[in-house]
Amino acid sequence: MVDPFGQMLLDGADPVIERDDGYISTSVFDYLAPVRRWAAVERRALRWVRGRVLDVGAGAGRVALELQKRGLEVVAIDVSPGAVEVARRRGVRDARMLALEDVDASLGTFDTLVMFGNNFGLFGSRAKARRLLRRLRPSVGRIVAASNDPSDTDDPAHLAYQKRNRKRGRMPGQLRMRVRYRELVGPWFDYLIVSPEELAEIVEGTGWQIRRLIRDDGSYYVVVLEPLN
Amino acid sequence: MVDPFGQMLLDGADPVIERDDGYISTSVFDYLAPVRRWAAVERRALRWVRGRVLDVGAGAGRVALELQKRGLEVVAIDVSPGAVEVARRRGVRDARMLALEDVDASLGTFDTLVMFGNNFGLFGSRAKARRLLRRLRPSVGRIVAASNDPSDTDDPAHLAYQKRNRKRGRMPGQLRMRVRYRELVGPWFDYLIVSPEELAEIVEGTGWQIRRLIRDDGSYYVVVLEPLN
Repeated sequence: MVDPFGQMLLDGADPVIERDDGYISTSVFDYLAPVRRWAAVERRALRWVRGRVLDVGAGAGRVALELQKRGLEVVAIDVSPGAVEVARRRGVRDARMLALEDVDASLGTFDTLVMFGNNFGLFGSRAKARRLLRRLRPSVGRIVAASNDPSDTDDPAHLAYQKRNRKRGRMPGQLRMRVRYRELVGPWFDYLIVSPEELAEIVEGTGWQIRRLIRDDGSYYVVVLEPLN
Repeated sequence: MVDPFGQMLLDGADPVIERDDGYISTSVFDYLAPVRRWAAVERRALRWVRGRVLDVGAGAGRVALELQKRGLEVVAIDVSPGAVEVARRRGVRDARMLALEDVDASLGTFDTLVMFGNNFGLFGSRAKARRLLRRLRPSVGRIVAASNDPSDTDDPAHLAYQKRNRKRGRMPGQLRMRVRYRELVGPWFDYLIVSPEELAEIVEGTGWQIRRLIRDDGSYYVVVLEPLN
């Protein structure tokens, strides 16, 4: 498997993200950051994370390591073999190569499913998010997920991209992108960033409700979802 | 003109370089570095720079500003309009949008032509280097040029690229690449990195000779060329 993201983590380097309109960004995200350097909204969201935790898109284990330190039982999953290797090396006790869509009953039940680091995006699209939310409902007690608000931009390139998405019947912040690192080019995938309003609309009718919105004056926010009963 | 390099300098960001085999690198080069943070070989080479100077591929004016400070008269040229704008803003007194191949008698004569920051590469290819060296001969008294030594690598991706180049009759370090920044994709261009031995072979018969090789234990070196008489 071509794994530019994992190789980048193994090398301690920075990845390049290429969007399908040719927009290139160099990730300045610190995949190894200790909790004191996390975004404030993620730090505030930590008190909503409890019990047995599924860390989705765990990367180098940034979040899983902090949760373990707090005495929580964490299963960390990532589709990148390199990321899983790095997470294990760094001390994540249960790191597995697994996609969110392949999570099933064999993993057991979870009190909290965590998607920090913008990883609400792993839901990919409105339809996939709704399908997965319904499927996760019986085995997950709470979802704590982070996203950037795509409406919070005045960048002409981003606005044009969002407009193009709307024309194609995609959500404005449904990014089609791939990771590149050195000679490695990863597969294209959809990554969904949404405003809190869009997120509320996606959740509607899936058996989940927004219990809490954690946000400051930035565009990055965390939402706490709980089952509707 | 699409000017990802210039826009990157204007924004104070980092560019992404894409090679034509898909190899991507994020430049960690500091285009604004003061002289104390330059590569040691460039600092050592400064004593060879004298008189009226042509700074080729001047970028944000890193080298031109230092030479001005030393009392030299500098004409700084770059093909990137954004780079020229940044250089002017930073205090370069004579910055012009011009390619090396368009330098002609209208610029006058120069005691020294400087190609720091790996800019021997702007010669592009063996044939172009030889043509330009001959053409510059009457109006330039000395060339002080820096290159990385492409033979100093054990990276399989680079070795494969060099092998492919040799098969195609190109010099091993003749890189075909383009600059990408955000949504901007620059044109493909050839950038030639050579070993000191290859450089000596290129110079042969052009009316120039290697007067001095300035090198340490790294792969980056500077060569001083003077007219053969």
